[in-house]
Parts: sequence; structure tokens; C-alpha cells
Amino acid sequence: MTPPLRALVFDAYGTLFDPFAVRTRAEELFPGNGVALSQLWRSKQLEYSWLRTMMGRYENFWKITEDALVFSCRMLKLSSDKHQQDQLMQAYLTLPAFPEVKPALEKLSYLPLSVLSNGTPEMLSPLVASNGMTDFFKHIFSVDALRMYKPRPEIYKHAVASLGVSNDEIGFVSSNYWDIAGATSFGFRTYWLNRGAGTGDELGFTPSAIFASLLELPRVLT
Amino acid sequence: MTPPLRALVFDAYGTLFDPFAVRTRAEELFPGNGVALSQLWRSKQLEYSWLRTMMGRYENFWKITEDALVFSCRMLKLSSDKHQQDQLMQAYLTLPAFPEVKPALEKLSYLPLSVLSNGTPEMLSPLVASNGMTDFFKHIFSVDALRMYKPRPEIYKHAVASLGVSNDEIGFVSSNYWDIAGATSFGFRTYWLNRGAGTGDELGFTPSAIFASLLELPRVLT
Repeated sequence: MTPPLRALVFDAYGTLFDPFAVRTRAEELFPGNGVALSQLWRSKQLEYSWLRTMMGRYENFWKITEDALVFSCRMLKLSSDKHQQDQLMQAYLTLPAFPEVKPALEKLSYLPLSVLSNGTPEMLSPLVASNGMTDFFKHIFSVDALRMYKPRPEIYKHAVASLGVSNDEIGFVSSNYWDIAGATSFGFRTYWLNRGAGTGDELGFTPSAIFASLLELPRVLT
Repeated sequence: MTPPLRALVFDAYGTLFDPFAVRTRAEELFPGNGVALSQLWRSKQLEYSWLRTMMGRYENFWKITEDALVFSCRMLKLSSDKHQQDQLMQAYLTLPAFPEVKPALEKLSYLPLSVLSNGTPEMLSPLVASNGMTDFFKHIFSVDALRMYKPRPEIYKHAVASLGVSNDEIGFVSSNYWDIAGATSFGFRTYWLNRGAGTGDELGFTPSAIFASLLELPRVLT
């Protein structure tokens, strides 16, 4: 029999907070290229997190986010100076939460809620605070403590010790399918937030449930 | 002082053999979608190799290539049956070499030449044979022996023991920049084959030389 859930853990970027919100500033700086830059930037940021973990050459998420931005500007032939890059990087510290996140978290707060993110503590604290969500979370776990990125199983395990409950009593919520696959492979009960009707990856692990808005999560959990 | 090179190791897919050649068969099967399918397929194949290595859930390259194809067809809303998928998979066993590869290898054969690839031995043998290149290579190294993918350092190390020369006497050639970064990080002397005027990634490691055709490699090495 499935034990009751005793904790919920949320991914941050893409799940609670919108990394593509940088497209507004990107469009102001590079007219006509805002969408392309924000998409390539995000995709390279993730790729660099995976590759550096495999190479055993960890750099923190701030650094690889900068590196991904520099690459993306070069690739798109956007001539960017340090000041423009700084403006885009600063936007990462105040990414907006998706509109339904706060009302959904209010409904879910009968469970201990935490964040488990690739971001550094120095990125996550202002991000959560700028969205007025500091009080919602019992823990904000950063991969930086382990110097490797998701989906390494050590990352998911890191949260378990502090939560003091067993793997299968932890519900993990992410909009990133590869993160769901990693968390499922590790042993969490997983909930894929599929806002954009995306296609799930063929990685051999599937979530307990799929839903399209965080507001559906309380119903999905019961 | 830099020691002389005593061995050359080549990546296979994208470097010697053209994985995008599948677009012809893909276009026959799914008119109007050949290019998109071949690009998404390749990109997901690599992504799955990285993610499964990080998750500690190795499956061989044939399996993840199939998985990436299934995903790509679903994502592009191409209704594919097993027979169509088989036809595309079989194309992987006879991918054509890029036109300049054979004449270039002939010029380079004063050094011991090897292949170090993500492919399984069962994929690489027919691929090399169908291109009439079996006699060129002293070793065909597959990551399958280690059940993990590039750019894990263990993969590059795997080649060193059999070659019997030291890391910095080995020249590694790849068209995949992330592979170059991994091999450089490990300690090989690296040569980035940049046929398409691509943008090098910001991964903290750069090649010894960059060139646009394998025919330039003999000159680059001296």
C-alpha cells in the first residue's frame, strides 16, 4: 500500500519561476531576438550543467548561466557588452513566479514544502523573497552543497536526510521531464507539471501523475 | 616542450560519419519532416546519453538511439510504425563517411589511428566496414565496455591503456565541441573539426587547434 505523502519538494526554474521571462529584457536589448535568446540561453544552461557534471568540472549555476548567455549571444551574433549581460543576469534574481504558484502553495501548505534546485543559495534566496514566498518553504536545497547537478541521484538523496522521511513519502514536482525521470529513478513519487502540453522523454521512468497547472496538484495528490 | 603525437583517436558520429544522412530516408517516410526529424533525433540521442549517465541508468547506444527516435516522432506528431522505425535505425549502420574522410585517413596513416565512440561494437563494426575503412583503424573503442557515455573522463582513459602511450601523446579529433571539451579536460591534445563554422561552447576547455576539413589535419598536426 502506498504510504501517505509527508513532504513536497519543488523544482524552481520552470516549475515555480519562469526562466523565459528574461525574453522581455532580452527583446529590449536585442530587438527581434528576445525569444530566440531566452530559449537558447535556457537550453545551453541545462546542457552545461549536465556536461560539467559528467566532466567532473563543476562550476556553480550562476557561472554556467553566465557562460550559457555568453555562448548564446555569440551563436546568435548579438554583440553584447558586460553591462548588457549583467542586466540579463540580474533578471534571473527576480524571475516572476507563474501566476498560479502562490494560490497553489497556499492550498498545499498542510504539507511541509521545500525547494530543490540547481541554483545557488545566493540565487534562490532573492528569487523566493522577491516573489514573497519565503514563508512557504521549510527548506531551500541547492545542488551547490554537492557540487554536481540534477539528475545525479545524490542530489535527490540530499533532500531526504534533512526532511527526515523516507523516499516514497516525498512528492517531487517539476516541469522538467528529465528532472522527473531522475527523481523517479531515485525513488521519489513524482508529479510532472506539463503546462505547455509537452512530450515526455523516453528515459525509462514515468511520473505518478501529470497535470497542467499547479492548482490541480491538491486534487492529484488525494 | 610538447612531445610528438604517437596516436590519433577519432570520434565517429558527426566526425567520420554523417548522422544527418538519415534525413533522406526520413524525408521519404515523412515528407516535409526529414530535416526536422534528423535534427531532433540527433539532439535527443545525445541528451539521453548524458542524462542516463548522470542517472546511473545506462542503456546502450542502439537503445537510446531508438528511444530518441520514438520521442522525436511523437514530438513532431509523426505517426510511425515499427517497420518505419526499423528502416531509420538500419540507416544508422551504414551512415556514409564525409567525403574527405578516406583521403584524409590515408594521409594520416603514418600514425596509429583509432575510433572512440558512444556506439556499441555491433553498431561500429558494420559502419566502419560499409565505408571500407576497417583496415585504417588499430582499435575501435566503444563506451559500452564502461556502461557510461562521453564526456565522462573514464571513457577517454579507457583508450589510453590499450594505446600504450601517455595522454599528451594522443591527439583526439571530434566535430562535437562538448566531446573536445571533455577530452581536453581529461588531458588529450584536441583538434576540433568545425565543418559548419559552428560556435564553440563555453565549457572552460579549448582545443589545441580548430580546422574545417579533415584534409587540413595533417598540416595542423605538424
